[in-house]
Amino acid sequence: MENFTFCSPTKIIFGKDAELKVGEELKSYNCKVLLHYGGGSIKKSGLYDRVKASLNENGIDYTELGGVQPNPRLSLVHKGIEICKKENIGLVLAVGGGSVIDSSKAIALGTLYDKDVWNFYDGTDVPTKCLPVATILTIPAAGSESSPSTVITNEEKALKYGLTTQLVRPAFSILNPELMYTLPKYQIACGAADILAHLCERYFTNSKGVSLNDRLLEATMKETIIAADKIINGEPEYSDWATLVWCSTMAHNNILGVGRIQDWGSHAIEHEVSAIYDIAHGAGLAIVMPSWMDYVKNNDISRFAKFAVNVMNVDNNFFNQSETADMGIKAFRGFMQSIGLPTTLKDAGIPKDRIEEMSIKCFRDGNRKVGQFVNLTQQAVKEILENCAE
Amino acid sequence: MENFTFCSPTKIIFGKDAELKVGEELKSYNCKVLLHYGGGSIKKSGLYDRVKASLNENGIDYTELGGVQPNPRLSLVHKGIEICKKENIGLVLAVGGGSVIDSSKAIALGTLYDKDVWNFYDGTDVPTKCLPVATILTIPAAGSESSPSTVITNEEKALKYGLTTQLVRPAFSILNPELMYTLPKYQIACGAADILAHLCERYFTNSKGVSLNDRLLEATMKETIIAADKIINGEPEYSDWATLVWCSTMAHNNILGVGRIQDWGSHAIEHEVSAIYDIAHGAGLAIVMPSWMDYVKNNDISRFAKFAVNVMNVDNNFFNQSETADMGIKAFRGFMQSIGLPTTLKDAGIPKDRIEEMSIKCFRDGNRKVGQFVNLTQQAVKEILENCAE
Repeated sequence: MENFTFCSPTKIIFGKDAELKVGEELKSYNCKVLLHYGGGSIKKSGLYDRVKASLNENGIDYTELGGVQPNPRLSLVHKGIEICKKENIGLVLAVGGGSVIDSSKAIALGTLYDKDVWNFYDGTDVPTKCLPVATILTIPAAGSESSPSTVITNEEKALKYGLTTQLVRPAFSILNPELMYTLPKYQIACGAADILAHLCERYFTNSKGVSLNDRLLEATMKETIIAADKIINGEPEYSDWATLVWCSTMAHNNILGVGRIQDWGSHAIEHEVSAIYDIAHGAGLAIVMPSWMDYVKNNDISRFAKFAVNVMNVDNNFFNQSETADMGIKAFRGFMQSIGLPTTLKDAGIPKDRIEEMSIKCFRDGNRKVGQFVNLTQQAVKEILENCAE
Repeated sequence: MENFTFCSPTKIIFGKDAELKVGEELKSYNCKVLLHYGGGSIKKSGLYDRVKASLNENGIDYTELGGVQPNPRLSLVHKGIEICKKENIGLVLAVGGGSVIDSSKAIALGTLYDKDVWNFYDGTDVPTKCLPVATILTIPAAGSESSPSTVITNEEKALKYGLTTQLVRPAFSILNPELMYTLPKYQIACGAADILAHLCERYFTNSKGVSLNDRLLEATMKETIIAADKIINGEPEYSDWATLVWCSTMAHNNILGVGRIQDWGSHAIEHEVSAIYDIAHGAGLAIVMPSWMDYVKNNDISRFAKFAVNVMNVDNNFFNQSETADMGIKAFRGFMQSIGLPTTLKDAGIPKDRIEEMSIKCFRDGNRKVGQFVNLTQQAVKEILENCAE
């Protein structure tokens, strides 16, 4: 087990009607709030009205900024920062999914910074302070509700960069599984793929002596698969939704990822795909991840066999671990298909002609490594993308 | 899944040589520190000197109070409070195991209170503030290093009462598995029993829809058993110690216990045993817990069968779950014996003559329920103790 430091101070308020507590929870911050959200879904569902009512009842002063799109844009972040500076905002309240939360984190960072917040994403500068962020989650997926991460798309440059800093862990997050009941199945599926990817990025490691967190990751992957399948293909109950929501948070607050070197190759590759094609991040992962698995499996065929048996319920072939591993990857890809996700670029309507470009951009002019389980070359990234082209 | 609120802000600093960071970590608190510890073991091991060197190097002003005993005493807590008030202490640094940490939490509560801190333990009053507590852990057991709990023995009244308040969650905890290498095997075994009990108290629930945390608890129980067995009966490596330490923290910071009503009957019963006989808490649990299991199993034989199969590696008898459950309890008791723990009061040299008294005191004059999985009567507590008498 590797040495580590871990601190996840986010207060989780979980359960039915939890969003009604937002106003009271905000009182102690004693500041003006930016209410940040996406499109019309929170208005249609009535969530927007309930949140505003709770804020008003508790005398919380706030201003609003809607319009966050999937793969949240830097331009809207800039607009939010301008509002926060002008109106002396003290906390950003994200009501939405990962995109809204990531956009809120960027605004919270940028408000206390006098240059372009993009500097933090492209590595030009390192953040040292941040407004508190709070969230009311509307989709189990990104895990941003308790993670130290934010991903923003610079649409002018067609760049999608992530940033990890403890500063952006939310102060509190409200998770009411019932808010997710009206989500389209495709969005749920994308969310499930994102959750599984967060768990896989942590699971596939070369670190030794990590059996406890291996088991915890396997447990969370299994439950994600069971809950997502029931929600998408069956007749879900509250507990299935609650399980998927709790999986999303557990998958990415990093308590299951401590003590090991994590991979993150598939995320790096997928970000290049969705930076250009604006595909849902989860759908991109459903395409890239199985192809990545095929490419890297021989680095540790035992670990892939373990994944096959302990997560994908494959019978172990004790005499041929390689076969076991292959059946696991096949089952993983099959699961993605079973919940309605693409597993090739072609399935998602993405052509092959910019694979070379994506494989080059992934390395940011040689400024970063791609993958820790297997450190990928540009040629490797290219092959991974070619292997899932069609 | 039940609604819940969860917040565990303790910063965990985990790994080899982690204790050397204590001085630097304390700097930001900018206050005088009470260094609180037990007997001579931290002096013998050199930990005491390393901690003091780190404090001195970083210019941390501190005063000392040693002498914490297992089942930490109220009298020493009073002494610590007096010192803290007189010397204007701003943080209590516990260097030791659960007893030292629990004692530190009590001192931290009492320093900011003008009446007797015991009021918080016997329920006469509710705490509203607390000094920050930090810890350097020397035994994987109580989980107090990141828990909101503290248990103190009022030796005058022969009472051992626990208190749970978010206020006492440590600010930071330093966990270096190598510090545990010199622990006597019996203490390790007691620690493992305590860890397993913390997991069992959460596992045995009547709450529905808790499959994710069921799996996470099962995973942590399995790893506790494997690591403890290797440490006590085998040839342990660093990773076995690291696993047991991480199990101890995960078992009791409550991230695995959210969304469910927990039991805590065995702890309540054991506290009565160790309040009178001063037996190690873990040894007491090794005696009480299997007897409690036998007594309550029929409340949910399926859950006990699940425990047997998923934790104790029992083959499921699909045609007779009751038999499966019994084999699980037998294996659990057998594990306790295999690591050198008593499983009857007689094994621990405890006579039968005060069972009635313990079963009565357990209910605190009718002021509390004992057990949530099965709500126990006084007669039930008496039978559980009688059934493990010899």
